[in-house]
Amino acid sequence: MASNGQAEKVAEVEENVGDNGDTVTPWDVQSKSDKGIDYDKLIERFGCQRISDDLIQRIEKVIGQPVHPLLKRGIFFSHRDLEFILAQKEAGKPFYLYTGRGPSSESMHLGHLIPFVFTKWLQDAFDVPLVIQLTDDEKFLWKNLTIKETMKLAKENAKDIIACGFDLNKTFIFSNFRYIGQSPEFYQNIQLVAKNVTFNQAKGCFGFTESDSIGKIHFPSIEAAPSFSSSFPFIFGEDSNIPCLIPCAIDQDPFFRMTRDVAPRVGLHKPALIHSVFFPALQGAQSKMSASDETSAIFLTDTPEQIRTKITKYAFSGGQSTAEAQREKGANCEIDVTYQYLRFFYDDDEKLQEIKKDYTSGKLLTGELKKILIEHLQKMVADIQERRKKVTDETVDEFMKPRPLSYKY
Amino acid sequence: MASNGQAEKVAEVEENVGDNGDTVTPWDVQSKSDKGIDYDKLIERFGCQRISDDLIQRIEKVIGQPVHPLLKRGIFFSHRDLEFILAQKEAGKPFYLYTGRGPSSESMHLGHLIPFVFTKWLQDAFDVPLVIQLTDDEKFLWKNLTIKETMKLAKENAKDIIACGFDLNKTFIFSNFRYIGQSPEFYQNIQLVAKNVTFNQAKGCFGFTESDSIGKIHFPSIEAAPSFSSSFPFIFGEDSNIPCLIPCAIDQDPFFRMTRDVAPRVGLHKPALIHSVFFPALQGAQSKMSASDETSAIFLTDTPEQIRTKITKYAFSGGQSTAEAQREKGANCEIDVTYQYLRFFYDDDEKLQEIKKDYTSGKLLTGELKKILIEHLQKMVADIQERRKKVTDETVDEFMKPRPLSYKY
Repeated sequence: MASNGQAEKVAEVEENVGDNGDTVTPWDVQSKSDKGIDYDKLIERFGCQRISDDLIQRIEKVIGQPVHPLLKRGIFFSHRDLEFILAQKEAGKPFYLYTGRGPSSESMHLGHLIPFVFTKWLQDAFDVPLVIQLTDDEKFLWKNLTIKETMKLAKENAKDIIACGFDLNKTFIFSNFRYIGQSPEFYQNIQLVAKNVTFNQAKGCFGFTESDSIGKIHFPSIEAAPSFSSSFPFIFGEDSNIPCLIPCAIDQDPFFRMTRDVAPRVGLHKPALIHSVFFPALQGAQSKMSASDETSAIFLTDTPEQIRTKITKYAFSGGQSTAEAQREKGANCEIDVTYQYLRFFYDDDEKLQEIKKDYTSGKLLTGELKKILIEHLQKMVADIQERRKKVTDETVDEFMKPRPLSYKY
Repeated sequence: MASNGQAEKVAEVEENVGDNGDTVTPWDVQSKSDKGIDYDKLIERFGCQRISDDLIQRIEKVIGQPVHPLLKRGIFFSHRDLEFILAQKEAGKPFYLYTGRGPSSESMHLGHLIPFVFTKWLQDAFDVPLVIQLTDDEKFLWKNLTIKETMKLAKENAKDIIACGFDLNKTFIFSNFRYIGQSPEFYQNIQLVAKNVTFNQAKGCFGFTESDSIGKIHFPSIEAAPSFSSSFPFIFGEDSNIPCLIPCAIDQDPFFRMTRDVAPRVGLHKPALIHSVFFPALQGAQSKMSASDETSAIFLTDTPEQIRTKITKYAFSGGQSTAEAQREKGANCEIDVTYQYLRFFYDDDEKLQEIKKDYTSGKLLTGELKKILIEHLQKMVADIQERRKKVTDETVDEFMKPRPLSYKY
């Protein structure tokens, strides 16, 4: 059983819109404030916990190294039952990582990288197996795409993910349209969840209506099932019950709130979670980057010139409108998209601190800040493109083949 | 495309209870009349067609032999697009048969035999491949049973079905909990249906409520998918679109009314159907035989003595209460369960006519009629038990192995 003995109700969040007008569902994230989503209120509304400094120190003690900047800087900021996972590790007991992605009709963008960059770090730091779900079926159910199109997108997105550097020996990537047809155990766990969630509960969690398809209404059980290790008998053994930790953006939380409600009723561990904030669109923090709006995002396929143009033209500035005013008053880093992108992707802590100080004070101008980001992202994206070129269809097939994984506890 | 070009609405039957109080859903059949379900009204309500004498003659012409007594006597009485299937056969084009069963917690009973007896005859007469779905997942979703229990029941029920004499070379039996995990194509067709049916439509067809599980609500797409030949690529080839004919009791019609609504929208053939009336409980025609009421049914595991006792004690009589009154007034065969069972299972037409005449006139007494039925069923059930003994786990595995089938068009 999971460590959290308190009753969690699947319908604890009956409304998908908070008092402050923030909407957060797996399919819609919107804020009415130019500061973006109020994460303190969201934590309260969802009933999860903020990651404390003490907890970060405990993590560092367990893994014997500093945590990743994405965690240190509060980008991964909230959790459920992370202490339970640490206690497992401290006791020499196993756990695994589960994350995923809905393969979209465009190339992956920078925002999509965040969970994978962080998950790769977790995998290395804890030396644990990882399963990655590509929800091609979700995209089929929600979008005007054929099954074959979504399966092709899943394969292409898998290449982007593999280019993040995952270890083949510790990582299983699967697409639902293929894997459900390869594993009776996965389908059995899907129905185990589906039996234990009513339409009313799904409506409370996800805002479904009676006009939604029965495919959509049933889908949450498909995202839930990989939380149970018995969905992967070739990795964990049949009838196994190994706890899992799910790194994801916080909009995915409703799936796992539902899963955590079901788990104890079917004698399985509740999945633990570690949540990230949303990666802002170039236009500002009111919404997350969108793959369907070309100008809102930097894609992994963008050229150095496209990256320069997009940041120069679109990145919302928290600085002043003239150089003189900026020198005098300085910038507001909280709403400055260029600074925020550096916060997500610039690993050098000291230098980032210096940049923040100088930009806030007015010593650094917006154009200069943008130059730093442009050069950083041009190199970062070029590196990913270089690695992706080496990912062949055969590599994808290797990652997607159901097989034992090698790892030690 | 299927032959029936008329618009059929999935929600054409918004209510599951007719004006006359008859309730017919896949999970509930009840009548308020002691004559049982009014099938004329049901045909009208469901929007299907009664099988005419002309149609029966056309069938006999196509297959070059008399039709099975179950068809001749109006037990299979209604259809959808049966002409289209005959036209396929006449043109030398392929079709296949699809039927199924929800494996119940008890042994199969006589009523469960009807679709299989008739389907076997269809398979032989038309020489076509047959797929049989065991909906262990349905039983898991609806009943207080574990997945393993329902899978075990599916396997036991498969033995009863095999004992009906199906040809291994032309028959594929599958259980959902196993086969979905063996065939991506089957799961893909499930989601193809699930994308195209809303909760409101499922509610109209099946009477679901908001308190039903998302598993139940999604389930109709799983019973629908085998109507599409591409769910069985090893038999029919990938991306195939071969029409199918579904023999079933008429309570299963809502699944296929829904399927027929979806099919043309996804470019696939509508399944054709041939419907049977319900097999009456021993107590009378108000409801169908129920596996969960031990005294309502004769099971395939019953001993000769149990068969004798059940028919003697429980079979509702349409005869008079004394021998004298029976000799004088005669019996009402329409409501007499003993006579009705003979109508289902007694193949000799001439003799059955004679029995009916003598029982109606009063020449035959109820006890004498029951004796005829008891002896007939004792032999029939003993024969099935004999054949079932020879069905091993290995035989079941052979029938349930995805493989090509041999048949000619």
